[in-house]
Amino acid sequence: MISHQIHLASRPIGMPTAANFKQVDVELPALKEGQVLIKNTWMSVDPYMRGRMMERKSYIPPFEIDAVMEGGAIGEVIESLNPKFPVGSKVSNISGWRTHFISDGADLTLLPAIGIPEQYFLGVIGMPGLTAWSGLMKVAKLKPTDTVFVSAASGAVGMVVCQIAKLHGCTVVASVGSEEKAELVRGLGVDAVINYKTVTNLTEALSAAAPQGIDVYFENVGGEHLEAALNVMNDYGRIPVCGMIADYNAASPIPGPSNLMMINIKKLTLQGFIVIDYFDQFDEFAAQMGQWLMEGKVKSEETVYEGLANAPEAFLGLFEGKNKGKMLVKL
Amino acid sequence: MISHQIHLASRPIGMPTAANFKQVDVELPALKEGQVLIKNTWMSVDPYMRGRMMERKSYIPPFEIDAVMEGGAIGEVIESLNPKFPVGSKVSNISGWRTHFISDGADLTLLPAIGIPEQYFLGVIGMPGLTAWSGLMKVAKLKPTDTVFVSAASGAVGMVVCQIAKLHGCTVVASVGSEEKAELVRGLGVDAVINYKTVTNLTEALSAAAPQGIDVYFENVGGEHLEAALNVMNDYGRIPVCGMIADYNAASPIPGPSNLMMINIKKLTLQGFIVIDYFDQFDEFAAQMGQWLMEGKVKSEETVYEGLANAPEAFLGLFEGKNKGKMLVKL
Repeated sequence: MISHQIHLASRPIGMPTAANFKQVDVELPALKEGQVLIKNTWMSVDPYMRGRMMERKSYIPPFEIDAVMEGGAIGEVIESLNPKFPVGSKVSNISGWRTHFISDGADLTLLPAIGIPEQYFLGVIGMPGLTAWSGLMKVAKLKPTDTVFVSAASGAVGMVVCQIAKLHGCTVVASVGSEEKAELVRGLGVDAVINYKTVTNLTEALSAAAPQGIDVYFENVGGEHLEAALNVMNDYGRIPVCGMIADYNAASPIPGPSNLMMINIKKLTLQGFIVIDYFDQFDEFAAQMGQWLMEGKVKSEETVYEGLANAPEAFLGLFEGKNKGKMLVKL
Repeated sequence: MISHQIHLASRPIGMPTAANFKQVDVELPALKEGQVLIKNTWMSVDPYMRGRMMERKSYIPPFEIDAVMEGGAIGEVIESLNPKFPVGSKVSNISGWRTHFISDGADLTLLPAIGIPEQYFLGVIGMPGLTAWSGLMKVAKLKPTDTVFVSAASGAVGMVVCQIAKLHGCTVVASVGSEEKAELVRGLGVDAVINYKTVTNLTEALSAAAPQGIDVYFENVGGEHLEAALNVMNDYGRIPVCGMIADYNAASPIPGPSNLMMINIKKLTLQGFIVIDYFDQFDEFAAQMGQWLMEGKVKSEETVYEGLANAPEAFLGLFEGKNKGKMLVKL
């Protein structure tokens, strides 16, 4: 059996290109007792992977050169010497950018049979969904009276932030980068949408969209979005810092906002968080999200690239705003 | 009775100058029933007053043009029609930059007779001391195992931060702007001192001073200090944001650090706070600080200007690093 894989060929400086990746075919050995052979059906590309392409200390080790790009995937057991995972089992896994792999089962999670499309377990009820939920509920301690601002609102995390906040009765202001994406988040029931690419002054646009001020800013972007949020935050506002995608591909450092004094003046709390720290609360999250999905109260949106060879293009598209909702590769 | 006063003459852009102030003599009326006449003996100049010179929404209203510069002062009752404040009473008050004023007593606090020099109630056991204590104990929730970094460590707040952290068993790294100030904070028992004006790379200097990393950064300065702290913070570090004096006199906005992504990567918490929110805990603080002072466990340091006319110079000196410890004006 051949496993087609995408490996990291070199570390990018600034925006990655196709040349940073290479496709490699690896012959898999025969199964040993206790092992299963998985054929991946879906794989995930996520913005956080950009950080792992760099050689630096972080919350997760860097990808290694000439090794597979790791990450979330969904697969099916096609050969089994492990009674816990019979042939036909659907599993989520972290095998990454490859068509097939062998596992002893320790890194596999059986998908529950609750009538939810399997790829949702890479998105709305997977890592991005847990990120949105933990940032809002555990970090920002969301209250129904909050006005929530979310940047990258049409992304995998952002669209879940919008919906969880609305389900809790909050007022939600969403920032996106195109009219098409604005349409998507309007469909999620948000109260106001800003297409940041068409406004000349983000602070003014945000102020107009939320004249009552912002209580919670779900930070996905950094840069001008953080600056505008700081200007419009209410006293004692909370800023869960999920990511700052505007900075990920900077070849040289980009200065931060000039209004950080607002943290002091408005008594704001910025708190960085990483979804890994909330994995132990996945069951609580998934029970709630599973119910919302089955009741039709949360919608998913996906942008799908077909075939492993297109995984680098899908990944690069994340930084060019090419995804609406979760970016996925169908294998 | 004439009250000599310093009024705000105009709002500064960038660094204030003597021209932003003017001295005014005001004839005080005769006392009414319930009133007292106070002769101020000490007045305080503090960095936060720079913010009040600007016309902007903040946690405290702006100073008004042609009105007295408000602020903390210590005075003595020299005439009294209020039995709660007999002649000779020593009181702390917020009457600001003036030699005399009339009060009905509502804004006066009697100084306890605990053998502490009266001007300490403007410093180490006053607002700056409470700021240091609340930032460390209430915001950062200091633990004995913490390594604490404090900028502007020889200032009124910073020198108390150093001492409270050492009294709790912490390792303390202090940043100051001169050799003389370095000597002062060494005398407070800190573990390492950085004279930031003599180092070429603050991140490297901080890293060398705290190879174990920083758990709590007490932020008084902003700019390069925040950048270095973000680089050297440990995971889950806490940053109580007390002020960012580097920005106060900027005529045009100064960009923030380019490494704010560290907030996310290291799961840091930055929390702005204002001492006003902790006034209700003053008694708890003062009981502790009073004991430390009486036991000689906390030292005070003062820089004193003489005479009301020198108050603007004392205030401007705060932004030129002219104070060691609390900057005071003796009236």
